[in-house]
Amino acid sequence: MRAACKLKVRDSLATTSVILRRFLKLGATMAKSKFEYVRNFEADDTCLAHCWVVVRLDGRNFHRFAEKHNFAKPNDSRALHLMTKCAQTVMQELEDIVIAYGQSDEYSFVFKRKSNWFKRRASKFMTLVVSQFASSYVFYWRNYFGDQPLLYPPGFDGRVVVYPTNQTLKDYLSWRQADCHINNLYNTVFWALVQQSGLTPVQAQRRLQGTVTADKNEILFSEFNINYNNEPVMYRKGTVLLWQKVDEVMTKEVKLPAEVEGEQKVVTRTRMKPAPLHCDVIGDAFWKEHPEILDEDS
Amino acid sequence: MRAACKLKVRDSLATTSVILRRFLKLGATMAKSKFEYVRNFEADDTCLAHCWVVVRLDGRNFHRFAEKHNFAKPNDSRALHLMTKCAQTVMQELEDIVIAYGQSDEYSFVFKRKSNWFKRRASKFMTLVVSQFASSYVFYWRNYFGDQPLLYPPGFDGRVVVYPTNQTLKDYLSWRQADCHINNLYNTVFWALVQQSGLTPVQAQRRLQGTVTADKNEILFSEFNINYNNEPVMYRKGTVLLWQKVDEVMTKEVKLPAEVEGEQKVVTRTRMKPAPLHCDVIGDAFWKEHPEILDEDS
Amino acid sequence: MRAACKLKVRDSLATTSVILRRFLKLGATMAKSKFEYVRNFEADDTCLAHCWVVVRLDGRNFHRFAEKHNFAKPNDSRALHLMTKCAQTVMQELEDIVIAYGQSDEYSFVFKRKSNWFKRRASKFMTLVVSQFASSYVFYWRNYFGDQPLLYPPGFDGRVVVYPTNQTLKDYLSWRQADCHINNLYNTVFWALVQQSGLTPVQAQRRLQGTVTADKNEILFSEFNINYNNEPVMYRKGTVLLWQKVDEVMTKEVKLPAEVEGEQKVVTRTRMKPAPLHCDVIGDAFWKEHPEILDEDS
Amino acid sequence: MRAACKLKVRDSLATTSVILRRFLKLGATMAKSKFEYVRNFEADDTCLAHCWVVVRLDGRNFHRFAEKHNFAKPNDSRALHLMTKCAQTVMQELEDIVIAYGQSDEYSFVFKRKSNWFKRRASKFMTLVVSQFASSYVFYWRNYFGDQPLLYPPGFDGRVVVYPTNQTLKDYLSWRQADCHINNLYNTVFWALVQQSGLTPVQAQRRLQGTVTADKNEILFSEFNINYNNEPVMYRKGTVLLWQKVDEVMTKEVKLPAEVEGEQKVVTRTRMKPAPLHCDVIGDAFWKEHPEILDEDS
Repeated sequence: MRAACKLKVRDSLATTSVILRRFLKLGATMAKSKFEYVRNFEADDTCLAHCWVVVRLDGRNFHRFAEKHNFAKPNDSRALHLMTKCAQTVMQELEDIVIAYGQSDEYSFVFKRKSNWFKRRASKFMTLVVSQFASSYVFYWRNYFGDQPLLYPPGFDGRVVVYPTNQTLKDYLSWRQADCHINNLYNTVFWALVQQSGLTPVQAQRRLQGTVTADKNEILFSEFNINYNNEPVMYRKGTVLLWQKVDEVMTKEVKLPAEVEGEQKVVTRTRMKPAPLHCDVIGDAFWKEHPEILDEDS
Repeated sequence: MRAACKLKVRDSLATTSVILRRFLKLGATMAKSKFEYVRNFEADDTCLAHCWVVVRLDGRNFHRFAEKHNFAKPNDSRALHLMTKCAQTVMQELEDIVIAYGQSDEYSFVFKRKSNWFKRRASKFMTLVVSQFASSYVFYWRNYFGDQPLLYPPGFDGRVVVYPTNQTLKDYLSWRQADCHINNLYNTVFWALVQQSGLTPVQAQRRLQGTVTADKNEILFSEFNINYNNEPVMYRKGTVLLWQKVDEVMTKEVKLPAEVEGEQKVVTRTRMKPAPLHCDVIGDAFWKEHPEILDEDS
Repeated sequence: MRAACKLKVRDSLATTSVILRRFLKLGATMAKSKFEYVRNFEADDTCLAHCWVVVRLDGRNFHRFAEKHNFAKPNDSRALHLMTKCAQTVMQELEDIVIAYGQSDEYSFVFKRKSNWFKRRASKFMTLVVSQFASSYVFYWRNYFGDQPLLYPPGFDGRVVVYPTNQTLKDYLSWRQADCHINNLYNTVFWALVQQSGLTPVQAQRRLQGTVTADKNEILFSEFNINYNNEPVMYRKGTVLLWQKVDEVMTKEVKLPAEVEGEQKVVTRTRMKPAPLHCDVIGDAFWKEHPEILDEDS
Repeated sequence: MRAACKLKVRDSLATTSVILRRFLKLGATMAKSKFEYVRNFEADDTCLAHCWVVVRLDGRNFHRFAEKHNFAKPNDSRALHLMTKCAQTVMQELEDIVIAYGQSDEYSFVFKRKSNWFKRRASKFMTLVVSQFASSYVFYWRNYFGDQPLLYPPGFDGRVVVYPTNQTLKDYLSWRQADCHINNLYNTVFWALVQQSGLTPVQAQRRLQGTVTADKNEILFSEFNINYNNEPVMYRKGTVLLWQKVDEVMTKEVKLPAEVEGEQKVVTRTRMKPAPLHCDVIGDAFWKEHPEILDEDS
């Protein structure tokens, strides 16, 4: 009697999607072998429930990569826009990312608190993020670098960090943006000293040793007539990616009766897209303006 | 007195390499902010010492990817060779991989037992493998698919599994190769039924339900005159990548005295490269032939 | 020069406390041996920062233990009070426990969110809790069971669970108290049926199969004239342990000048002690009354 | 139709053992509440398969404990024997421990490679070991300390370490025995200097600073006429616990026909018991003599 039940259950499962899955990758029963016990060595890496899951990726050896591809110093606008394009692709192709933040050769992706994507397995989160990012980097390279060839395929490392409270998540993003500020100010002065004053890198490094923010601003202003606050905001603040409504204007071919010619019709559609912002995330204003990011039920 | 000591030590550290690192990415002291405490939320994910570390990656939604790119069924030779090219790139760009094994849209990479690469951090292992693989997939696509365009950047998921003994490692690789065999035999019959006998996928799936290996071999032989053992070995066994000495013939321009023309000279150099094999890894023969793989001191 | 520095540093470290530590357990340098590399196999098990850490322990095979020691059914008051005495000892001997909750043969201990006790290592938390509890169980046995001998030393298992938010912590405690209620109601009816109506355990179990709370209350009332709500609150609600101010009356010997006899003086001292409550923790009232429990800065 | 199937399956599960379990601790279905989701926060802590699992425990604040209970210095024989009695109890009450090693206030327990006790959950291993040890410590105290009262219940911390190979396991035990040797030699000289030569602890510590093994042996011999190798082997080597066949002589009452008086009969039974050895485990001899310890199939 139970055997009969089982057969019926199995039968009812044999839907089309299951059949399709089966002839691509064989079902569990077929693949069983005496070696299958090795699956028991896989460790569980579930991220703690109800926490913010952050994946941060970094370019591997991007100093060398930047030199080989003649990136502008201290910032290469093309490279930063390519990073952002890749991050947008990640947000669109993967599930449950609510906000991303990038600067230099790094990008952080925040999954929603109650995401149950791939049962919150850390390895799935980080490998799907970095692989999608890496393939996109090569795929979209020519959109930003045109005919300049990509010399070799780059690598990215990634990690997962779990934040239990809204405050710790905000502090994480603040940490990355503070890091962006400190690095960019330093690099802006450093490269001005090298490129405009003709110092060697070692001389420039020595010149800056022990200086604080005010010192660096003063050097920029007095020696190079640069007001740091007028530097491009994308360089100073990095890039925040948020889901925003976008009106998409589409041109659609309309099928008409045979006697008239085909016509094109303009259609407007509203979609959610990850839109770049270059704003401060350290103060409260950003979080008040975008309460939906931290709202657990969003 | 201790302050003096500390200064001297710090001074002696300020070597060229440190200076270079500093003006690329700022030193720890400069980047410190009140937000830095968030680093404490990063968990340690060190792989158990003295164990084999395996990273296995899988194409994400490769059923759809294969259809969109018209992959031949049941095996697309170009796609398999591209996978192997990416795996070779991973072995060459990363450290300490001693053997890799691939089939279908998956590849496994085995790091040497006593590797201390990135202090054995699992997240480093898996993200560097999948990101290098993914960027290589796009980078080398045209080498295998020529003018057929890549329609979108693919994703790959990855995982780390740790094996404590030589036997469990061998059983892991045997498991993947047994999986290759079972899937490929099934797919070979399935697609013969669909492509040559005109069955629908559902009909083919029903026809094969409950059949064992001998049944499938019999169908192939009696209905399609196919001897499964004569099918291409790469399809039946998958691909093993091993480091092997390769003689590289290089053409080198030789500088000569001004009065004579420049000449080219042929130079042979021996290098280690990851070479593809399509052999059985389940039996003992393979491991006897390649004792260096499991030899802990290699 | 650096060697000289090192010597001085080492010297300055040799303070009294270090000396004392050294002759108890030898310093790191002396214990170093070629085997010491095995320490690298210890895994990090730090609990996620800023989260509530809960250790729950359960008696091992306490069904048998209860039978061997003739515990009253469905509740043995002596055993429950002993459990609470052990839990109080745990709270007093260990650090940073803010609340505990016990019922039946289990007790849960909640460490404060920002505790850094033993660097938040899960193994330290759980082993110190269960070992202190287990040794106290034997130590205080005779205070509750008098001359009835303890037949063998009991075991307890333990686990660590980490809760990221106040809501999840409250829900954890509510879960245990709901479990107490469901079990105690069931056991109260079950043992009334067995002890008073003379049913066998299997008959009693069958009688209760499929019954809901209202059914069980009805059986108790109509068949045994028991109003469940009048059952002892400790049985129905379990025991909450909270730190409360206690006035301790101490008798202190007072040293006096030689010509008069020593006298005793009564001194009142206010101390914090873990006090037992048998109240509802599921509703909001408890948490409003004791806001200091969840207050992160307490 | 499927509902009917489910009912039957559920019915067939309601076997006697399930009934028994149910009226001890209520079944899963009854305990379910809206709070039960909090179980999802429990992390998996399975020990890697096919590896040696070691639990090591240490007395908490045993320096103070030893002083309060007037332990003899440098070794208290009663305290060491009590430790060993507790370790034997742990081996007998728990499953799958193949060897234990103890010295000073610590004990290590090695579970067999392929143990599946509690599904290899690390928290179960360590909490059951330390709690059984701690309750036994109090329970058996009077067997070793007689009328000297135990002043308070002691605590023990514990940890789990996983070793993948026989070599690393042997090196672990060697590490602990080397530690025993180094500490005991140091303590023997130290306390001779304090107890016999009247040095203060600080003076003794200074006297020994920088000395190597030969120096310490020399001090013992020339100043105290002690040949360290003649010190008790339990102090020098610690205690190994191995399962050994023991002939138990039991006195059994024999029921006889009514006409004769009851008699007592001496019966010999062979049982496995954890027997103490004080031998070297660093060299090969021990492992050759006891091959069953490392034999995976034992």
